[in-house]
Amino acid sequence: MVHPILMIPGPTNLSDDVLKALCQPMIGHTSQEFYEEFKEAHLLTSKLFGSDPERTVLFSGSGTFGMEALFSSFAKPGDKVLSIVNGYFGDRFAEIGSIYGLNVKTLKFEPPEDVDFELLENELSSESYDFVTLTHIDTSTGIMNDIRGVGKVVKEHGAFFVVDMVSSLGCTEFNFETEPVDYAFSASQKCVGAPPGAVMVAFSKELLEKRGSVKGRSYYFDLKRWLPIMRDPSIYLSTPNIAVIRAFRVALNEVFEEGLQNKIRRHKELGEIAYDFVVKRGWKPLSKRPSPSVIAFDLGKPVANEVAKSLYKQGILVAKGLGALSSRVIRVGYMGSTTKELLYNTLKKIEDAFNEINH
Amino acid sequence: MVHPILMIPGPTNLSDDVLKALCQPMIGHTSQEFYEEFKEAHLLTSKLFGSDPERTVLFSGSGTFGMEALFSSFAKPGDKVLSIVNGYFGDRFAEIGSIYGLNVKTLKFEPPEDVDFELLENELSSESYDFVTLTHIDTSTGIMNDIRGVGKVVKEHGAFFVVDMVSSLGCTEFNFETEPVDYAFSASQKCVGAPPGAVMVAFSKELLEKRGSVKGRSYYFDLKRWLPIMRDPSIYLSTPNIAVIRAFRVALNEVFEEGLQNKIRRHKELGEIAYDFVVKRGWKPLSKRPSPSVIAFDLGKPVANEVAKSLYKQGILVAKGLGALSSRVIRVGYMGSTTKELLYNTLKKIEDAFNEINH
Repeated sequence: MVHPILMIPGPTNLSDDVLKALCQPMIGHTSQEFYEEFKEAHLLTSKLFGSDPERTVLFSGSGTFGMEALFSSFAKPGDKVLSIVNGYFGDRFAEIGSIYGLNVKTLKFEPPEDVDFELLENELSSESYDFVTLTHIDTSTGIMNDIRGVGKVVKEHGAFFVVDMVSSLGCTEFNFETEPVDYAFSASQKCVGAPPGAVMVAFSKELLEKRGSVKGRSYYFDLKRWLPIMRDPSIYLSTPNIAVIRAFRVALNEVFEEGLQNKIRRHKELGEIAYDFVVKRGWKPLSKRPSPSVIAFDLGKPVANEVAKSLYKQGILVAKGLGALSSRVIRVGYMGSTTKELLYNTLKKIEDAFNEINH
Repeated sequence: MVHPILMIPGPTNLSDDVLKALCQPMIGHTSQEFYEEFKEAHLLTSKLFGSDPERTVLFSGSGTFGMEALFSSFAKPGDKVLSIVNGYFGDRFAEIGSIYGLNVKTLKFEPPEDVDFELLENELSSESYDFVTLTHIDTSTGIMNDIRGVGKVVKEHGAFFVVDMVSSLGCTEFNFETEPVDYAFSASQKCVGAPPGAVMVAFSKELLEKRGSVKGRSYYFDLKRWLPIMRDPSIYLSTPNIAVIRAFRVALNEVFEEGLQNKIRRHKELGEIAYDFVVKRGWKPLSKRPSPSVIAFDLGKPVANEVAKSLYKQGILVAKGLGALSSRVIRVGYMGSTTKELLYNTLKKIEDAFNEINH
């Protein structure tokens, strides 16, 4: 079968070298070769976050693991959590918090609105929170939230600030040690351009100092259990998905070969190209500003399914919307190695398909 | 670099077709193609367990997830757990139970001893347990426990019987629906011969009926949350590690192409070959009987490291021991597609290396 080009908000197309790494003959997870590859992947992960390797964890899993590991490792029953929601994944954070017995409140903003700082300020003044969570770029809407702005307000009110960077780490400007963030996580299949199956977490010295003694509520999700393994991967905790970790290492190397700043610039441009195209065409983005990894837009008519089908026939996979407007919304992802030409070509094909359907 | 042949207790060598499936271009986890492959892998998993697909879950993770998912999905705080231990993984079960706030007691047997039924009977008579856990084949010792015998005693005392089949499912005779077992789990990288990264769980009607209403203690590990996804993989819960699941499907098909009974017979023979060789050579197996997937044996001298190094130089990876006797113990795995010739060749090389070192 012919595989379509992926223009969805993750997973992304894999480079030849990443694919090659994925299908090496199997090696042991207790072999020197794997330890060395793992250590390199871990160091590159902390370079990507701009975080201290001593507070950076790489393990097998998906983005969801980053959410669950936060509460499992650092939260106490009854902690107060404010989950800022302007897309699908803010609600998930709230749900996981509730499962862990935390007092979760959501602060919702209706797309394309992003965070209203007055409302946030009011909420944080009227109630004392332990954690405030935010999705950096929500793949359901393409909204990119202002980490630095929100983080500053959150820190002024003494809460830990937690950021879901699943769809932003590697294609946005970020430096964990200088941003007002206490906990950030991402996953392998998004901006880095690896297969799904690895999850990365960075946390602040302050979070570790104040909450490091919290008794972990899970075996696998307790990040404190993973820290010694980052220093010495020969300590056995759980069999890693070797093939994915190996491919992830190669993808990380490709990020730094392109140059992180070059990559970020490329994604910024891609975001602007997509946003301009959509606005000029008269469609409505679900965000007020371009995002460097994904755009979601309302076609104005319930033809998203037909448009996506038409593109699939032409060898390109785009995503439909999530939630209420799903039948009218198309989502295009441009994570990983997407070029301007590929993005433009995709948008043009969407336009042609839309015109064809409305003929 | 040249990749050594894996003769360790997992992961195993991958067949060409499994490798090929692993390195297909990436596809979307929300694509029809993936749904169909996932559904097939799920059905073949239940065929492998001999379990009802409605109570069989396939998800991304390692064997450890099977342990954690049990307690997370079905245990209530304060539940009484008896963990039978005759190797490394029984202790892990106890540890995870304790993290979940359960009252865990361990019943230990020193290798090569397996379960003493009188002691078990006494323990279950003197105390009422909710769960009794057992490792079917422990890779640290190669001991294969008698599931049916232990299960019968456990069920007579009204406890749920839980079996870790990580290193046995697919190379031992087993039928979930007719054995006295309430919960069994395994992982992709062992007898099935796929890469690590997928975990499989089967549970009994009785466990689901009596404990189905337990409030899950985790988002990811709550099996009740996964059940609807087995029926309809288009429901999004967490991004699966697509490449591994695809390779797992191909490996499962290879199991049934060989014929499950043929595969079980082959592994039984491999176990006997290994056990005979070791005993005749004068080394001491850590188990009283052959096991169909792994043998651990005491060389009588602290030369395991040197022996393993010598084999590695010849392109074969074997494992050293775990725990107290580690410097004297070699472990050889023969899961997956291992042939008699390959196993015999490995054992012969171990003998030669041992003689060389003791010359």
